[in-house]
Amino acid sequence: MHTDLVAALDIGGTKIAGALVDGHGGILLRAQRATPAQGDGHTVMRAVEAVLGDLTGSPLWSRATALGIGSAGPVDASAGTVSPVNVPGWRDYPLVERVRAVTGGLPVELIGDGVAITAAEHWQGAARGHDNALCMVVSTGVGGGLVLGGRLHPGPTGNAGHIGHISVDLDGDLCPCGSRGCVERIASGPNIARRALEGGWQPGADGDTSAAAVAAAARAGDSVAIASFERAARALAAGIAATATLVEIDIAVIGGGVGKAGDILFTPLRDALRQYATLSFVQRLTVAPAVMGTDAGLVGAAAAALRRREDAPTAGLAS
Amino acid sequence: MHTDLVAALDIGGTKIAGALVDGHGGILLRAQRATPAQGDGHTVMRAVEAVLGDLTGSPLWSRATALGIGSAGPVDASAGTVSPVNVPGWRDYPLVERVRAVTGGLPVELIGDGVAITAAEHWQGAARGHDNALCMVVSTGVGGGLVLGGRLHPGPTGNAGHIGHISVDLDGDLCPCGSRGCVERIASGPNIARRALEGGWQPGADGDTSAAAVAAAARAGDSVAIASFERAARALAAGIAATATLVEIDIAVIGGGVGKAGDILFTPLRDALRQYATLSFVQRLTVAPAVMGTDAGLVGAAAAALRRREDAPTAGLAS
Repeated sequence: MHTDLVAALDIGGTKIAGALVDGHGGILLRAQRATPAQGDGHTVMRAVEAVLGDLTGSPLWSRATALGIGSAGPVDASAGTVSPVNVPGWRDYPLVERVRAVTGGLPVELIGDGVAITAAEHWQGAARGHDNALCMVVSTGVGGGLVLGGRLHPGPTGNAGHIGHISVDLDGDLCPCGSRGCVERIASGPNIARRALEGGWQPGADGDTSAAAVAAAARAGDSVAIASFERAARALAAGIAATATLVEIDIAVIGGGVGKAGDILFTPLRDALRQYATLSFVQRLTVAPAVMGTDAGLVGAAAAALRRREDAPTAGLAS
Repeated sequence: MHTDLVAALDIGGTKIAGALVDGHGGILLRAQRATPAQGDGHTVMRAVEAVLGDLTGSPLWSRATALGIGSAGPVDASAGTVSPVNVPGWRDYPLVERVRAVTGGLPVELIGDGVAITAAEHWQGAARGHDNALCMVVSTGVGGGLVLGGRLHPGPTGNAGHIGHISVDLDGDLCPCGSRGCVERIASGPNIARRALEGGWQPGADGDTSAAAVAAAARAGDSVAIASFERAARALAAGIAATATLVEIDIAVIGGGVGKAGDILFTPLRDALRQYATLSFVQRLTVAPAVMGTDAGLVGAAAAALRRREDAPTAGLAS
């Protein structure tokens, strides 16, 4: 039996990935190009078109009924445009319209990459079965997305759950976004490394000053490295507790490179959560590592496309 | 023509109010008792029953088709229980069951008081026409509620939007809730007054040390009073910006005594919002004073009951 498929695009500052995905999240066909991030808008779009060409050229394409796009943000789902911070050639770029032109009018769903990761973890991963969840990527930046009332909550523009840029330290260090004391400014990988170096941590003979190297030092007992992770954990806990207090999530899933640090991150994070998540209705909040890996963006974009397809008849009934 | 009505209860630490409300938010009948806040659970319930007796004794009662309760929190809408901080005799008190016993099995909707205020402002007030809104009460405490996607978002337990207890200063002063640097710990009326007094502000001959007196001094040019409001505004701005960044609200409505301070609060609040709400999708965020006044709790409880009544057939269709 030939069941329907959905097409998925995962657009980041480093690579543009595409896939055809079945109704169980299985990837049947993959395509990928490097992102010409410093190129003009047209050049970047040609890379997207090359990925789509690999998909539309397949005999499987005829089974695709919708297309989901997860893109580096900010995006504007209501306008169908994207303005990825690391792709300067795209500012309010009409990606949905251009993708539709190549894919023959297939319904297209655009969401931010944090929302896509969340859709994947909720569909197939660590947030499965949770009706109210925050999923985060803690890496070079800090992003996220929300599931509320059993459904993905992208918000009107597809950017909801942007926990990296909420302030948990209103007098804190200036963040590149213009605000102060953002979760990302304290808890991202580069900031974990910066803080360790400023505190006197010495990298090993290989000169590796990544957050992963700081995590290794912390596991070996380096107190400065441990303190830098504890500080990141505290900022993450304050942000997660704020989210739970605002929208009643019961789980926070953490992925990305920093999320892989294990107990070095999760032990102080769970301790700090007990301090910041105080009200009765947030005390059962738990945190868990992400499980979806590098395909999360593609699988999540597919989930969003499936959701759109399935919502259509329901919306018709309700109206 | 005799249209349907809904009954509403507004339960606080000072008074228990009840009303019969029409489909336009008009209050046709009122009832009220003082809250015997230090009494045991049964004594407090007797006051609720007295208010309900005034309603059920009216010839209008036969037209009531649902009952909404807005209660001081925390509440647990899923269990039908309430545990108001200022009513120690009620802990996990089965209010919904007890109210049903008195009102003949009318459908009952329970929400927190911040959510009730939000329902009122969205139905009839400053958030009308806004599909994504945060409504706040800034007073002795700081509470709130959310409208997302055009609908009230009480969350599974009826407490969502609890902005007073999100931390915007993770190393800040200890809050009575157990966390640090909560919005309420910086921006509530008593904290505005405390900070002014600590800064050397002298109350007038009447000895009034309320936040309203600090606001009057600020309007007269007292720099310490102005600074205390600016600090509160900054904490509110960080909290509002965090909410917008997490769930994409486009308006924040501020009521309660501190919300009445006018430009002394709103001018520095709008300035600070520009600093903390930095991402493209939150830059159109506005703030506005609440307009619903002292009936907001009753009107909001009625709105929640109406919503429940109207949702019932839709839910049937969707399932």
